[in-house]
Amino acid sequence: MKRTQMFVLLAVCFLCAAGGQLVNGQELLNQGRYVLLIHGGAGTILREKMSPAKEKNYRLALEKALKAGYTAIKSGRPAPEAVQAAIRVLEDDSLFNAGRGAVFTHDGKNELDASIMDGKTGKAGAVAGVTVIKNPIDAAKAVMERSEHVMMAGRGAELFARECGLTIVDPRYFYTEERWQGLQRAIREDARKSKPDHSYQGTGYPDYKLGTVGAVALDQEGNLAAGTSTGGMTNKKFGRIGDSPVIGAGTYAKNQTAAVSCTGWGEYFIRSVAAYDLSALMEYQNMPVAAAGEAVMKKIGALGGDGGLIALDQNGNAAMPFNTAGMYRAAITNDGKTEIYIYKD
Amino acid sequence: MKRTQMFVLLAVCFLCAAGGQLVNGQELLNQGRYVLLIHGGAGTILREKMSPAKEKNYRLALEKALKAGYTAIKSGRPAPEAVQAAIRVLEDDSLFNAGRGAVFTHDGKNELDASIMDGKTGKAGAVAGVTVIKNPIDAAKAVMERSEHVMMAGRGAELFARECGLTIVDPRYFYTEERWQGLQRAIREDARKSKPDHSYQGTGYPDYKLGTVGAVALDQEGNLAAGTSTGGMTNKKFGRIGDSPVIGAGTYAKNQTAAVSCTGWGEYFIRSVAAYDLSALMEYQNMPVAAAGEAVMKKIGALGGDGGLIALDQNGNAAMPFNTAGMYRAAITNDGKTEIYIYKD
Repeated sequence: MKRTQMFVLLAVCFLCAAGGQLVNGQELLNQGRYVLLIHGGAGTILREKMSPAKEKNYRLALEKALKAGYTAIKSGRPAPEAVQAAIRVLEDDSLFNAGRGAVFTHDGKNELDASIMDGKTGKAGAVAGVTVIKNPIDAAKAVMERSEHVMMAGRGAELFARECGLTIVDPRYFYTEERWQGLQRAIREDARKSKPDHSYQGTGYPDYKLGTVGAVALDQEGNLAAGTSTGGMTNKKFGRIGDSPVIGAGTYAKNQTAAVSCTGWGEYFIRSVAAYDLSALMEYQNMPVAAAGEAVMKKIGALGGDGGLIALDQNGNAAMPFNTAGMYRAAITNDGKTEIYIYKD
Repeated sequence: MKRTQMFVLLAVCFLCAAGGQLVNGQELLNQGRYVLLIHGGAGTILREKMSPAKEKNYRLALEKALKAGYTAIKSGRPAPEAVQAAIRVLEDDSLFNAGRGAVFTHDGKNELDASIMDGKTGKAGAVAGVTVIKNPIDAAKAVMERSEHVMMAGRGAELFARECGLTIVDPRYFYTEERWQGLQRAIREDARKSKPDHSYQGTGYPDYKLGTVGAVALDQEGNLAAGTSTGGMTNKKFGRIGDSPVIGAGTYAKNQTAAVSCTGWGEYFIRSVAAYDLSALMEYQNMPVAAAGEAVMKKIGALGGDGGLIALDQNGNAAMPFNTAGMYRAAITNDGKTEIYIYKD
């Protein structure tokens, strides 16, 4: 056992020494200290199916989110604020499945989940199944900072957000024609299937769970934070809650290890306790963040799950592994150099 | 670091060799292989405040739950069924804060949470905030076995339970006079306090979060399972979700490590990812189950949280650590010997 661990560690060190930081086979170009990573979801994102105009929009949105988080960091704001600033931009952008542009449930609603964790204090906040809070990440942060609770759901969470003075919107604010058509396609797809227990399924559409957003940040005081926000899966039923609002599954942060935000097929990330597992591998097996990220995604894949994650440690080492065709992802270093990626290679 | 680990391991081995299994300073008496552990919550349970009649009722209830789970195991049923059988008894008994006898929310409702995990398959199911399902543990098991989801909340979860043919009851079924009076006391207590942000708090009553129930089982094929069920905290607001329905926090099971069910101040167990952390300590640091359980409870205590947990490994080694004055807990070995404990000593 110990020999195996040693071997893995040596192999990882060799890879790092040989080519800098390997991020799912793709090297992060900058050698500086990363201070913010973001993702906009992992899934079947293929170059041949992407128009240049659409790709440009995604890149612009990711860059705008990076800049918002980076500005917070450079202003000396704490890591949770940088995470919040980046995620707000992605929530407000209808390209992503979070905030405006979220996918629809089977009943034609937008039910949003979000969570945030502060790596310095170990405090966390999450909201699940909210329908009228403009920026769910704001609500998650308010739960963390202004309540003794960690997780609030549904109307109760909305009442809390209202009492905190957060922006409340008509549920129609979240509507986009593209997502609505996505629901109609999913419902037609459902009707064509004949499995008798199908009404309990409906999660198998590769891209109907795409587009969760997340951010991990390292502030000027060396503190970490992580956050995630999502609209969940198209056509979801039964008040399904995915991994995004589950601390330990979709989001986790601890200064001594890493800040982590996950995206993908949520059920597998919950069963794997994915975000905390990455931290545990670093803490208990002395794995570097990149190796821990790869190990977690390998386990998810072995279970049959797919998706990706972003992770950042206190030294600015970054990892963005995924096992799908693509993941919208971007990074910025302490000196402001940005990198934006979409496909696997 | 490695020297420290070695020392801890040696110290634990010495303790085990010297006096059998140490369970929070209290030795489990039987030397046999434990097959089922249950708990009925941890909190300020003081011998001087307990009447002999009440204590007898608790002991009888715990024994009845043990027997129900044990019968399932002896009949060759899989571990999740044994967990379900034991928890159903505790849910049906109004002594415990789960199922009938659950505490009331601020709005005078009983909102129930439950979860279950199968250590063999790694599958899991959970429901949160349900109000009409007689046995929430049945619903959690149905989510695990009959859906592709892990977590369902509120009315959606209830609709699913109904479609699965589970027993649906009028919400008044859960009512008990004692819990109702408990809510009235909590509301009066609230009114006396003057903190301006108090409406977001209300979790500080030591025993208003007491009484979550849970079970961990080892079946005849050597498979593990864990489950937890609760009514949450008296006077809870804002759709608060505690650790009980959160896989990794309140419940976790993996054949290679342990089955774990937690009880206590849920927010601390979520932030600590407590149940999975116990498993990670066993898997990544080769800790025995008892040492891992103690380590997890020590971390919860260091954060300011309180509660306890039960954990069982594939060899029938058991741990039931807690850092409160008492925890309703019981264990049964493969040969049917039972042990029932309430206080610390």
